[in-house]
Amino acid sequence: MLNLVPFVSVDDMMRLVLDVGVERFLVELAGTIEEDFRRWDSFDKVPRLASHSPDGVIELMPASDGALYSFKYVTGHPKNGSTGRQTVAAFGMLADVATGYPLLLCEMTILTALRTAATSAVAAKFLAPKGARTMALIGNGAQAEFQALAFKALVGIDRLRLYDVDPAATRKCAANLQGLGFDVHASASVAEAVEGAEVVTTVTADKRNATVLGDNHVGAGVHVNAVGGDCPGKTEVHAGVLRRADIFVEYPPQTRVEGEIQQLAPDHPVVELWRVVAGEAPGRRDARQVTLFDSVGFAIEDFSALRYVRAKVAGTGIGRDLDLLADPDEPRDLFGMLLRAEARRAAAA
Amino acid sequence: MLNLVPFVSVDDMMRLVLDVGVERFLVELAGTIEEDFRRWDSFDKVPRLASHSPDGVIELMPASDGALYSFKYVTGHPKNGSTGRQTVAAFGMLADVATGYPLLLCEMTILTALRTAATSAVAAKFLAPKGARTMALIGNGAQAEFQALAFKALVGIDRLRLYDVDPAATRKCAANLQGLGFDVHASASVAEAVEGAEVVTTVTADKRNATVLGDNHVGAGVHVNAVGGDCPGKTEVHAGVLRRADIFVEYPPQTRVEGEIQQLAPDHPVVELWRVVAGEAPGRRDARQVTLFDSVGFAIEDFSALRYVRAKVAGTGIGRDLDLLADPDEPRDLFGMLLRAEARRAAAA
Repeated sequence: MLNLVPFVSVDDMMRLVLDVGVERFLVELAGTIEEDFRRWDSFDKVPRLASHSPDGVIELMPASDGALYSFKYVTGHPKNGSTGRQTVAAFGMLADVATGYPLLLCEMTILTALRTAATSAVAAKFLAPKGARTMALIGNGAQAEFQALAFKALVGIDRLRLYDVDPAATRKCAANLQGLGFDVHASASVAEAVEGAEVVTTVTADKRNATVLGDNHVGAGVHVNAVGGDCPGKTEVHAGVLRRADIFVEYPPQTRVEGEIQQLAPDHPVVELWRVVAGEAPGRRDARQVTLFDSVGFAIEDFSALRYVRAKVAGTGIGRDLDLLADPDEPRDLFGMLLRAEARRAAAA
Repeated sequence: MLNLVPFVSVDDMMRLVLDVGVERFLVELAGTIEEDFRRWDSFDKVPRLASHSPDGVIELMPASDGALYSFKYVTGHPKNGSTGRQTVAAFGMLADVATGYPLLLCEMTILTALRTAATSAVAAKFLAPKGARTMALIGNGAQAEFQALAFKALVGIDRLRLYDVDPAATRKCAANLQGLGFDVHASASVAEAVEGAEVVTTVTADKRNATVLGDNHVGAGVHVNAVGGDCPGKTEVHAGVLRRADIFVEYPPQTRVEGEIQQLAPDHPVVELWRVVAGEAPGRRDARQVTLFDSVGFAIEDFSALRYVRAKVAGTGIGRDLDLLADPDEPRDLFGMLLRAEARRAAAA
């Protein structure tokens, strides 16, 4: 049936993630992202198309490697929590370039948290100090646990120092991570959280230029995983940290506008993460170096995530088919399809 | 339930269109499009984001009026017919700007044919010669019957002169239109089709610079409804016709690249159709004038179509809810939702 598009709902995605196991899912997804980063040049790339409003942003993020095409619809609405909604909600689609026909429609609220965490961990594999075990996790909202587990599975982090302006978020995060192999410390301040941390992850949801991470919070040798600053006017890290750090980014034309580096000159030197993954640029060079991954999220990561999910659900029975595309008996006879539906109704009446 | 998104499938759309009646649907949809055209300035507008490949194009078409946001995913793959697929396939979404949450996911292959026809008819209401009853319909594929019915319902066309390079397409179109109130003439050539026609509609699918409509095919006083030319390198109308005509377009930044006017200088004068609808610019001024609507399809028409469908299905029971968005009990507790799903599985096992 040409008209049917496999659909992975939120429940289906939870089933898939639990069947695979969260950590294995993150490791395999990170592997798929690395695969696609190594063939970066084979992709059609554009900065995402954002529609801003006073309450948030709605973005479309397309990518294509010439054989597959993907796009993600993703929102960023910091005030959504007050009505029980997600700050970041998303869904996406994978399609066949040759026909334009969709191959998969997929929830991506959960998947975005997973791919963001997997990408952060890929960066940290190349940038965090060797043998790093302690991570400060600033911002304990919807994405925090995913970040923690990705860093455990891919980097070896097993000591967490949590901080959030809202202690309830920290309690939620600590409770969720219980029994998952971490030594968890709830901190009363950012300064306390970063004590002894080799990796500092910032993942807050404030839509403004905040200084979540001050210049004095980042010592020599630390890797900063700056996840939360991801749209114009939204940053988390003090410019002083940025000036001391070697900065790694996904796609410069997008990160210059949306990332932490919107605080810097437009020609401030940055390294594209894919070059590090592909072995074309060095990652961490020495133990005193401050490295910073200015994560904003790029469409190729969503492409990888959809590609991974499509392969992973194949043959599992997870998901179901949606009647999304018209499929007349004769392709040029779209109107005739309507007429035949009418004839069937008349016959049934 | 915050996570559920109403979904209108292809079958649902057929049911809706048949319940309402094709002509009434077209008239009401045209009314909605006119409403939105009259408030053109209140929309966020961008040219569609196209991903081109050797076989076709995949496009994302967003629009927003500040309260609602819509986007359409639409393909153009001229060779799809050979594998039983649609040349143009589409689906779309309407969302709430304040939260970013989707309000409707909707098939748009049928809906695109309807909104394209409705928009053409809106243009013709202002541009076709007074009392026009005869239309030449060049290209008798998937969109032809929708164009015919829109022109009947909104302009008063009741005599059709069909032509297609493939006579089977003409036979299909003539058969489908039987009993719908037209006097239908199958023509052996474009020259024969345009004889006596006050309106000439071109709606072919060839993805190249073709001359479907030659300069000698368009006499004084005719309105040309040029629908098929809709991407770079795809045109249908001889430049000589364009030079003699007053040209009306949807959104110049998009039409200059995609429309018939890609054959003309980038500063060739055009009139925005919305200005005519809003009474800010004249439509047809005299009986000898050649007018041409260079239709490429703009995102606001899809916005109108989704807005119309959403209002129309309300309370009918048509469509069903999709579990598209994650909905944890506590919005920041996305990971906890996963943990609770796991606990439920363990309890059930």
